[in-house]
Parts: sequence; structure tokens; C-alpha cells
Amino acid sequence: MNTVELIKKKRDGKALSSYEINFLISQYTTGNIPDYQFSALLMAILLKGMNHSETAALTNSMLNSGKIINLSALSGNKIDKHSTGGVGDKTSLIIAPIVAATGVYVPMISGRGLGHTGGTLDKLESIPGFRTDLSLYESMRILKKCGTVLIGQTKEIAPADKCIYSLRDVTATVESIPLITASIMSKKLAEGIDGLVLDIKTGSGAFMKSQRDSINLANSLIKTAKSFDKEVIAFITDMNQPLGNYIGNWLEVYESIRVLNGEVKNDLYTLSIKLAGAMIYIGKKARSIQEGEKIAKQKIENGEAFKKFLEIVKLQGGDVNYINNPENYPKSKIVKNVMSQKNGFVSEIDTYQIGIASLELGAGRMTKEDIIDPKAGIIFYRKIGDYVKKGELICELHSDSKSEIKSAEQMINGSIKFSNTKPALPKLIKKIIR
Amino acid sequence: MNTVELIKKKRDGKALSSYEINFLISQYTTGNIPDYQFSALLMAILLKGMNHSETAALTNSMLNSGKIINLSALSGNKIDKHSTGGVGDKTSLIIAPIVAATGVYVPMISGRGLGHTGGTLDKLESIPGFRTDLSLYESMRILKKCGTVLIGQTKEIAPADKCIYSLRDVTATVESIPLITASIMSKKLAEGIDGLVLDIKTGSGAFMKSQRDSINLANSLIKTAKSFDKEVIAFITDMNQPLGNYIGNWLEVYESIRVLNGEVKNDLYTLSIKLAGAMIYIGKKARSIQEGEKIAKQKIENGEAFKKFLEIVKLQGGDVNYINNPENYPKSKIVKNVMSQKNGFVSEIDTYQIGIASLELGAGRMTKEDIIDPKAGIIFYRKIGDYVKKGELICELHSDSKSEIKSAEQMINGSIKFSNTKPALPKLIKKIIR
Repeated sequence: MNTVELIKKKRDGKALSSYEINFLISQYTTGNIPDYQFSALLMAILLKGMNHSETAALTNSMLNSGKIINLSALSGNKIDKHSTGGVGDKTSLIIAPIVAATGVYVPMISGRGLGHTGGTLDKLESIPGFRTDLSLYESMRILKKCGTVLIGQTKEIAPADKCIYSLRDVTATVESIPLITASIMSKKLAEGIDGLVLDIKTGSGAFMKSQRDSINLANSLIKTAKSFDKEVIAFITDMNQPLGNYIGNWLEVYESIRVLNGEVKNDLYTLSIKLAGAMIYIGKKARSIQEGEKIAKQKIENGEAFKKFLEIVKLQGGDVNYINNPENYPKSKIVKNVMSQKNGFVSEIDTYQIGIASLELGAGRMTKEDIIDPKAGIIFYRKIGDYVKKGELICELHSDSKSEIKSAEQMINGSIKFSNTKPALPKLIKKIIR
Repeated sequence: MNTVELIKKKRDGKALSSYEINFLISQYTTGNIPDYQFSALLMAILLKGMNHSETAALTNSMLNSGKIINLSALSGNKIDKHSTGGVGDKTSLIIAPIVAATGVYVPMISGRGLGHTGGTLDKLESIPGFRTDLSLYESMRILKKCGTVLIGQTKEIAPADKCIYSLRDVTATVESIPLITASIMSKKLAEGIDGLVLDIKTGSGAFMKSQRDSINLANSLIKTAKSFDKEVIAFITDMNQPLGNYIGNWLEVYESIRVLNGEVKNDLYTLSIKLAGAMIYIGKKARSIQEGEKIAKQKIENGEAFKKFLEIVKLQGGDVNYINNPENYPKSKIVKNVMSQKNGFVSEIDTYQIGIASLELGAGRMTKEDIIDPKAGIIFYRKIGDYVKKGELICELHSDSKSEIKSAEQMINGSIKFSNTKPALPKLIKKIIR
């Protein structure tokens, strides 16, 4: 097969066969197709698209570039959740223990912070001692023992995705629904799961700003999951303001502890219960999503979810003292109160800018080499629709750097809009697609 | 400036500024932008296009990546011709001496065989001793002395084009009108010319198969030439059958000698006179193309064109004995007559296949490393519209290889269609655009 002819075929808007796609992925992954040919192909895919069979074939080739974890020895359903990422989105930390407490296995491979969003691995690693770089063998042992494990992508899992992702990042070929679909699904399918719940974020703090794009991505992911005979439910959820009230690695662990303890019943709680309910349902421990939600709530009320979280932290090497006594965790050198500059209803939040502000405070990486400050971040006291008076507290900024506090404060003041009349509240769950 | 953001801009269909284009070309040429980013950009340009100012800016950046020859010391107009390439297209060999004989300077930088088409340099080098790799200094000396010089692209001329062309070739990004325009024009403008005659081929043996694409390319070339204040005339000409009767390097020199001698007045003669006429006109040695054509014909009749050709060959190191006595040139080991397998009018010739057959006989390169056999090729005795009886001679195949003769014969038999009624003859000159 001739690589140039295959690039030409896609460039001219024709569909590639699964055999051709497999050739391209395997030859690229083994270094036989150079980066400069593959990036031309990626641009052609981005601009000309791929149909559902091509997307499934691409997913399959990327999946088979590495190891597929065999979980058949575990009797019970294995279900994971994937979120496309947002600001303050810490549901994984809450959902994994809830769902594992019901007897559904949750083998969760997560990522690090990307752009303006935080990453589950970075959040977990804010717990002193917590290890996310377990071997597959260790991970399986923990999954079997406690029903869930939260790890990073190992080099055995979908290595093609790793190569392709780095190339997409530097060639302006990230924003392609078939490429995003194959990247997500190849990693998730490698976990050996039976089903998947998808949380597709939409709004100013999401990668997909428009609901239409989010729905298109959801449909693409669902069709692909189904072509691999996986149960799947997708939620299109709001990301026009941070989820919950805490942004930043330890701050998000702290809020998760409070939700798991039953102390907080905010939007983060609502969404976590909804996603957990769907996982419990497709994990066959409930006859409907609603029943699944009821069970999820019970797991919080009866303390089993929090107990499971302690168990995970302990098994993955984390110091449970901080989970039991989060008030002992070190504090940022500077905590700055940001006050409202006017009277009015909070009507709009540029959530992307909030994410960037948090990153600047130390909660994320500007370059690959940056070291994260686990303490840094933002606590939001107001959400869209809240009335505030001039001089009232809007949020707290946590950082060790005075200059970053200053610049973050400016960004935040520029990111929040006020109105004189109460605005319509954003709907948290916009659509359920299955 | 950020390369990824610029790729994204073009990918999203926006126009790049001349400053941005200059950044991309200069950074790529100096190795600061890697191939994999540039190929993604090329694919975005191919699929999203470029407007005329972008194309002119691209041409300008590529032109300025190298040296622009300064011909201001020569008093008189400097005019070149560019053909997009076809099978049997040897007009350069005929035109350069005709036009130079009128006092118009013709600084001609030509190419080698590409794909199924032959190259002027390869043809000239079939003349024993003929050198096309002259230094710029030597070339200028010859140009001054005899009014024309026929050389290859030196590394000083538009080096950006060389880098970009190699990358386009392996990334399926050749067929883009703005990229083709900038590639042609950057090289031609570097010659220091005042004007340019374009021969845009269309049909089965051309790179542009449809007349619409050819007209689009012509318009793009004309607009770009004009934005550099160059005189320009474009001819859209037929390539649905080989031009003239001879294909192959020495065979084409031989046919050119016969046209220059006034012995042959076929389609090759007609087109050469037309193109030369236009060059003489924009070179200001005639008041119209028609008058230019008249002068061109005179230069053949009075022997000056042939004399000029002898002068060029001599100055560039070629053995003029073969030009004066072409019958002394070595012959191929095998000359095979291909006979018609039916009665009828020749109605269609797949000229691309004829080009490939000639290449297989030894007249071209399958890979970059192949060595050309200057004797090899095809002599066509029939053209579209001719009536042939079964068993009558259609063409002669010249090669040293028996197996290649066999395969070429099959290709040729498969490439010619016959009809019972006389077909419409293809119009040689389809359109003149200025």
C-alpha cells in the first residue's frame, strides 16, 4: 500500500477501508510512516471528516496498537466514566468510590491537566503518598480487592494514541470529532470495560463551546462504543461556570471529601449522583438510572462511599490522615479575598479564564516541565444567579506567589458579568443520549 | 508568531497576511519549522485555498528565499516561456533559438522529467557533451553572447521551492493551484525576466485533466505575474495526444531539428510558432502576436533559428556534429513496429499511458536513481482523426530492453481507441488569456 495514495484518498473526501486505516496506524506507530506524512493525513481527516465505520476502524487500530486489559477473571460488570474535561470537574473522585461500593468494578485510567482544565491524576497526587503510576499487575490486584483503581495511561495502553496525540497538538489537528473519538475510545476500551458513561461538557469552560458540537461528539462516541458492543450513556452537561465551588488540586480533593461525607449537596453532588446512577444501572446493579441514583445517594448517606474512598487512598499509598482530617493539610502562603465591584446578579462567568487563572496561581502547568502547587487554586462563593452587593466576597485565591495572585484577581474580575435582573440559571444536565 | 496558530488560521479558511506567510516560508526554509508542521499547513492550503494576495505573498517569499538574477546590464527584453508539461512537448528547444534570433533574450531555467512527462534538461543532455549545470556566471556569459541559455535550477534559485516541492511530493499536496503558482512563478521571476508566455496543457496527457482547472491555473499565474509587473500571455493548449510525433529524449531533439530546419510543419511547428510569436510580441520585437508569428516563421525559413540552435549547443558544450548529421546518432538495439489491430479512425489516445510507456522503454525515470536511455522512446505515425487499416503501422518503439518493448506495446494497444466515423479533431490552441 502507498501512503501518498491513501493521504490523497482522504484528501479527496473518500472513505478509507479498515485495512487501509490499520496500515496507516501500524506503520506510523512503528516509525515506518514519517511524522510529515501522518500530519498531512491528520489535517485531511480534520477537514474532510470520517464516517462511523472509519472512526470505529481507527479506534480499533489504535486500541490494538497496545495491550487490552483482560478483566474476565473478575465476575461482575466493569464500568468507567469519561469526562471531556472542565473547570472544577472532580466527579471521578466521587463516582469511583460510590460505584465501587455497589459491587460494580471501576477500572479508571485518567489524565493530567490539559490546557485550562485540571486532571484527575494531578488531583489525586495532591494527597501525600498517592501513587497513580502503578504497574498493570498492581492495578489489577487493587481493582480486584476494592473494586476500583485510579491510574494513569501506561505505555502498554494504546501507544498509537500517545504518538498521534503529541503530533495533533503541534499541527493544529486536535479539534476533529473522529480523532477525538478514537483517542478517547481506544484508551477506554483498553481498560477491558463492559460499559461507559460519558460526560460531555459544553460551554465557556469546555473544549466544545457549542452544544451542537458536544452532541455530535456524543453521537460519535456512542456509535463507536456500540460498534464494540459496549453499553453506553452520554450526558451533555453544563460548563458555563465551574462545577462545584473548589478549583485546584487539593482544594478539589477537599470538596470531594465533603460531598462523599454528605456535607455538601451542590451541583457537583447532583451531577456525581446522576453519573454514578447511570454507571450503577449499566453495571446491572439497578433497573433504571433513577434507581441507580437512589442507590448512589444511599452509599453517601450510609458512609460506604467515603469508606471506599479511604480504602482506595490507602491501597494506592496515600496518607489517609489528610482525608480524615483535611484541615491539617498545608495552606497557601497567601489567601486573597476577591470582592464584588458592583451590586447585581452574577449573570455570566468566562469559565475558560477562571481555569487559566487557577493554572496561573500554581494549580496547573504552563509548560510540560512546570511543577504543580497542590495547595493552589480558587474557592468560589458565588454561582450564576446569585445576588451580590458591592464589597461582598466572590471568591478566595490561594497561592504562594504574590504576583500571580494579582494577575489572577484581574483575570477573575474581567471574567464575571453582572446583571440587574435575575438571569436564567444554566441547566446542569442538558441532554441524555443513549 | 506561533506556527500552530497560523496553521489553525489557514485550516479554518482564513487568509494569512504576507507577514505571516513570510514568517512560515523563511522559518521552514531555515529549518526552524519542522516538516510535520509544514505538511499540515500544505494540506490546509490545498483544501482551503489561498486568495490572490496570499498567492502573490507566497510567491514573493519563495522568490526571496534565494538569488534574483540581475539582467539589467542586458539592453533588451528578457522573456521566458513555461509549459506545465506534457508528452512529446519539446517546444522549448524550438522556441529558444527562434526568439533569441530576433534579439529578445531568453534566459530559460528548465526541469527534468516528472511523472509521465519528459524534461527539457534530459532532452538537451541526450546531445553528447551538452551541459545544463552551468554556474550562474557561465550562464550569464552565454546569455549575453547568444541571447539564450538553457540551464537547470541552481541551488541559489528559490531554495524554498526545492524544500517545499519535495515535501509536497510525498504528502499528497501537489495538486493545489496556489502552491503550483508560487512554485512556477518564484523560479521564473528569479530569472530576472520582463515577461512570460505560459503554455497550460489540458487533457489526458496533462497534469490538469480538465480545461476548467487549466483556466483556473492560468488565471492564478497571470494575476501573480501581473502583481510583479510582468507582461504575461497564457495559452491553454491540447494534450489529448502527444505533441508532434516523437517522444523520448534524443528522438525529441531530432524532431526539433527537423522543425528548426523547416522540414516539418506539424502541430509541434504550429504551437512553437504561436508561443514564439507571443514571446517576440511581449519582447517588443513585434506589434502583435500575429506579427510575432510571422517573424518566427521567417527565422525558420531563413535558417537563423537553426543556426542559433547550433550556437547554443556549441556554447553549452554539445557536439554539433549530431545536430548537423542526426542520422549518425546511435540507435536503440530493438526497434519494434506496432501495427493497428483494426480498421478505423484513431479517435482517442490515453496520452498519460503513452508517457508511461515511453518512460518504461527507458526514456524516463521510475525512481530518482534511474539512468535515462537517451535513444529510447516512441515515434508516432498516426494522430487523432487519421484512418488506419488493420496491420498498418501506428508507431515504432525504441528500446534496448526486449521485456520493456513487450510491456510498452501492450500499454499502447490499450491506450488507443478507434471509431468508424471520423472524430472531431482536438483544437490545438483552446484559449488565449492575457
